[in-house]
Amino acid sequence: MSLLESINDFRGLYGLSEAGLNDLCSEIRKKILDVTLQNGGHLSSSLGAVELSVALLRIFNPDVDKLIFDVGHQSYAYKLLTKRLDRFDTLRREGGLAGFPRMDESPYDFFTTGHSSTSISAALGYAKARDLRKESHEVIAVTGDGALLNGVSFEALNSMSNIKSKVIIVLNDNNMSINARVGGMASHLAKLSVSPTYRKLKDYIKSQCAPIDNEKSANSTLARIKRIKMKLKSLLLPTNVFEELNISYWGPFDGHNVRELEEVFRLARDYDEPLLIHVMTRKGKGFKETEENPSFFHGISPGTKLSDALKKNDAGDSWSSAMAESLCRAAEEDPMLTVCTAAMKDGTKLDQFAKKYPERFFDAGIAEEHMLVYAAGLAAAGMHPAVCIYSTFLQRAMDQAMHDICLPKLPVLLGIDRAGLVGEDGETHHGVLDTAWLRALPNMTVAAPRDVVDLEFFVREWRARRIPMAIRYPRGKAVKSIAAGGIPRKAAPWEAAEVLRRGNGLCLIGVGSTVELALSAADRLLEMGAEATVVDLRFIKPIDFRLLLPLLAEHERVITAEEGSLTGGVGEAIAARMKEEGLAASISCVGVPDRFISHAARAEQWKQCGLSVDNIIELAGFKK
Amino acid sequence: MSLLESINDFRGLYGLSEAGLNDLCSEIRKKILDVTLQNGGHLSSSLGAVELSVALLRIFNPDVDKLIFDVGHQSYAYKLLTKRLDRFDTLRREGGLAGFPRMDESPYDFFTTGHSSTSISAALGYAKARDLRKESHEVIAVTGDGALLNGVSFEALNSMSNIKSKVIIVLNDNNMSINARVGGMASHLAKLSVSPTYRKLKDYIKSQCAPIDNEKSANSTLARIKRIKMKLKSLLLPTNVFEELNISYWGPFDGHNVRELEEVFRLARDYDEPLLIHVMTRKGKGFKETEENPSFFHGISPGTKLSDALKKNDAGDSWSSAMAESLCRAAEEDPMLTVCTAAMKDGTKLDQFAKKYPERFFDAGIAEEHMLVYAAGLAAAGMHPAVCIYSTFLQRAMDQAMHDICLPKLPVLLGIDRAGLVGEDGETHHGVLDTAWLRALPNMTVAAPRDVVDLEFFVREWRARRIPMAIRYPRGKAVKSIAAGGIPRKAAPWEAAEVLRRGNGLCLIGVGSTVELALSAADRLLEMGAEATVVDLRFIKPIDFRLLLPLLAEHERVITAEEGSLTGGVGEAIAARMKEEGLAASISCVGVPDRFISHAARAEQWKQCGLSVDNIIELAGFKK
Repeated sequence: MSLLESINDFRGLYGLSEAGLNDLCSEIRKKILDVTLQNGGHLSSSLGAVELSVALLRIFNPDVDKLIFDVGHQSYAYKLLTKRLDRFDTLRREGGLAGFPRMDESPYDFFTTGHSSTSISAALGYAKARDLRKESHEVIAVTGDGALLNGVSFEALNSMSNIKSKVIIVLNDNNMSINARVGGMASHLAKLSVSPTYRKLKDYIKSQCAPIDNEKSANSTLARIKRIKMKLKSLLLPTNVFEELNISYWGPFDGHNVRELEEVFRLARDYDEPLLIHVMTRKGKGFKETEENPSFFHGISPGTKLSDALKKNDAGDSWSSAMAESLCRAAEEDPMLTVCTAAMKDGTKLDQFAKKYPERFFDAGIAEEHMLVYAAGLAAAGMHPAVCIYSTFLQRAMDQAMHDICLPKLPVLLGIDRAGLVGEDGETHHGVLDTAWLRALPNMTVAAPRDVVDLEFFVREWRARRIPMAIRYPRGKAVKSIAAGGIPRKAAPWEAAEVLRRGNGLCLIGVGSTVELALSAADRLLEMGAEATVVDLRFIKPIDFRLLLPLLAEHERVITAEEGSLTGGVGEAIAARMKEEGLAASISCVGVPDRFISHAARAEQWKQCGLSVDNIIELAGFKK
Repeated sequence: MSLLESINDFRGLYGLSEAGLNDLCSEIRKKILDVTLQNGGHLSSSLGAVELSVALLRIFNPDVDKLIFDVGHQSYAYKLLTKRLDRFDTLRREGGLAGFPRMDESPYDFFTTGHSSTSISAALGYAKARDLRKESHEVIAVTGDGALLNGVSFEALNSMSNIKSKVIIVLNDNNMSINARVGGMASHLAKLSVSPTYRKLKDYIKSQCAPIDNEKSANSTLARIKRIKMKLKSLLLPTNVFEELNISYWGPFDGHNVRELEEVFRLARDYDEPLLIHVMTRKGKGFKETEENPSFFHGISPGTKLSDALKKNDAGDSWSSAMAESLCRAAEEDPMLTVCTAAMKDGTKLDQFAKKYPERFFDAGIAEEHMLVYAAGLAAAGMHPAVCIYSTFLQRAMDQAMHDICLPKLPVLLGIDRAGLVGEDGETHHGVLDTAWLRALPNMTVAAPRDVVDLEFFVREWRARRIPMAIRYPRGKAVKSIAAGGIPRKAAPWEAAEVLRRGNGLCLIGVGSTVELALSAADRLLEMGAEATVVDLRFIKPIDFRLLLPLLAEHERVITAEEGSLTGGVGEAIAARMKEEGLAASISCVGVPDRFISHAARAEQWKQCGLSVDNIIELAGFKK
């Protein structure tokens, strides 16, 4: 029986020796590595937070204290130590453990996460509730140096002095966001992390805190006075942004030294005021391959090997790559073209663009709102900015899309990556809402290519037309060309839907990723003796009703399929318009229903949503 | 002819003496006061930025330099001085000048605004474009101390060191947000604003800059070396957050002293690096009443008098007040109930709540994202948090509504104020998108009360059911009770639509503010001999199709009316469902079409959108 199995849960940590703790950390790392390589997941961040999780669980008691992990992609060790060891092999699999904290998975997950920079705000809510209810326990937010640079974190830091409830913020600083972190705050953290004054200060904190701890019950006034000394005066110390926001700053500490962390956490527990503990860790800690390639192992697919980091990046056929290549070609012709991303250079495959056009590439860090307004500023000044961003993170910048891009009609291109179901990352990461809210924005054009030919056509036309535009494309492989039955592939006109196959009775309407599904369903129907019409909608906004209405009037049955929310989706829009126009044909809409779709393989999620040939055949009135 | 008329535009400023400038500022103030009292608008902020605008336009040339006002509610003086004096009387009126900067209104408005905290990001975009295009002009962002506390501003400040393009940020610090500003950063600014070291520094900057200016052309290396001295060392100065983010900080300066401002702006123009100039102004400057009541005069309605500030607040019959009162009553019974707002305590009428329950009230400042996650944290810890926020600003927190409230099903109540058309504030401020994006969020319940009886019912039920919920209500007066024909008013069941009047042939469906419209249309139709059915939908999500479908099956014609976007709205949803279910009745949907609705009186905007009895009568097939 391994040490990890023998301790059962976090309570088993209390009795371990220093050597035992070190062995345990190694076992945890090995377990995380094995399961993540097999199932896919966030490896580097979780490897970096092993000692941190162990130390937190030795000092804080999750039966009473509240621990909140920002993003949550570093919480695997925490999951292993909070009664989920036996199910850890199911990580990110259908019906198994989620890759992020989930309140409905465990009473030890105090906040549901996946998106970045929410932990400090949530911790403040928990802390305020504790004080209002006159309870006494600790609230700890574990955030990262990348997450700290997002506006939400800053808003939360700013409000700490107003809320006046104690929280402990642990800043897990691995000197990286998902890719390298950016900005003035990053330099500031770097400065703090090497400050010799702070290193001296560590001893000072300890010497000051030690007696307080003992005297606490005996004489709380004395303890209070001594604690005041710990309010670090700027005279003694380098300039510090946190102290200026009235948040005590302690650090930096070694995030891989359990004993040191424990000592600091114990002091923090007994300290009266909000404070931030700056902890230095190494992303990917523990294995040569992961330490040397932390970005590669940040988020990996199922069945990855440690040696894969050395392979040449072979994701050249993904939608992300197709978009990046299209932008590279555009940049060759167009000196005004610039590209922005928000900490997703690797994910959106913009590394080549960044290398080729460093001046025209901008990584905003995890700062989606700023990025969109910055792009709007570039556009207002005559540039042609494109932004590549995952659909789920673009939700952070809906207001900017409306207020700063659509209202002034600025020619910003939103390259919406991972639009649709994303598979194992689960509920927080699906890109299924963009259609609903983008359709409601005046002046916005939204297109979804079925293949790379249309993707390139859309990018080219956006440049020529200088309009606000979004192109949505899913996770996964892009097909180079999907031609309409036998005709050489050539992009259809702007704002036009395209009839790929002309049948009768039944009309199948696909858009983007569901066009192939519609074609497959038509193939199967043909085998069954029915000739279905297949339409590629191409434009989600405006919908080409000039083509659709007369076409649908000639059919008896319509089925729409989309990889997005049915509520507010194109199916709903088409059905409503058919009704308003009095068309006789019946309609059924297939897409993502009104519930959160749990983690599973993307193909499985498609099936759950009825995005399958079988379901379409059935809706068409045929038995499978 | 007044001085203001005689100078024509900003070029006329160059020849004025100091006395002339002072006279001009007085004239500008008087003009702003007169027009704003009459037309309504943002008085206090604009009065505070008169000297600032004059000084900016004496040093910077808007024919080449780019000036961007954050929010834009302080830009009236700028509008007066950039060729819009002759049209200034039309401010905020239909077809007249907008109350905010609009790129389509003037070539001197370099960015379209209305929402807060976008100016620094936009300025960085402009500055980067300038550098890429090898142009040379200045880019100036004029932001406020309230706007600075929003996450977008922080993200922009953080990215300045990455973007490496010079911008000048003028921080117009009036020590207020819309209400009093909040948080650690606010205290920090307060500290900086009174620092004697900085006051000394002002002279230091001047002495250092003066020779540079002259030597610039002669010897740029020398100039550069001297400029380095100006990088203010932390040894000399109090701790400064901006300097820590690698942004030079100059200040504080007197924002009502044109000569001092000019001197500083001239130095800033010749400085090589990004910098922030901290300027102290007084909100409402120039008139006793506005100086003493800056919050009252922040945003005023048409036909306000200076003496109105002394009147007792009489907006007791607004929807905002009804919601605030409902929450006050709930708080009496429920110690877990807390209320949050984002710098909108006055706008959302929460002053009484804040006074009565200071511990359970939280003003996040202009920090919508943080506020929603904080509320989610409170809810996760067992509290019952309600958030009162304008619909248009809630757009900033769509992701938080999805990720932090709906996914974990946390019992947060979103009180969505100003949901619908808002009148004179115009395009940026309408709350017409919330229905579209909220409908797409799983686990969300969305209700719209037609009267205060239902509002109170919804709040009560939300507390009992502990679910994520949004209640949307418009700007303007709330009717206490709208009973169904003769029957005593009693709230209908949860998630139920309500038949207010039973007719035949035609069914009118209203929701929230459009229920009265539907009833009025039915009255008129009755005069014409037609008996229409009138339904109050009550719930936007889920829509009560159990009641609707059989009911609509008995009608031949359906007309829906909603004060929100038609795209993604309830009309579209009902039409689509009728089509999917094969209902025979025809349908027309009335609501906000797919374009931005310009500033005008709200009643006028209703007409433009077809939200009128006449239009409904016509759609019903009757002549007016």
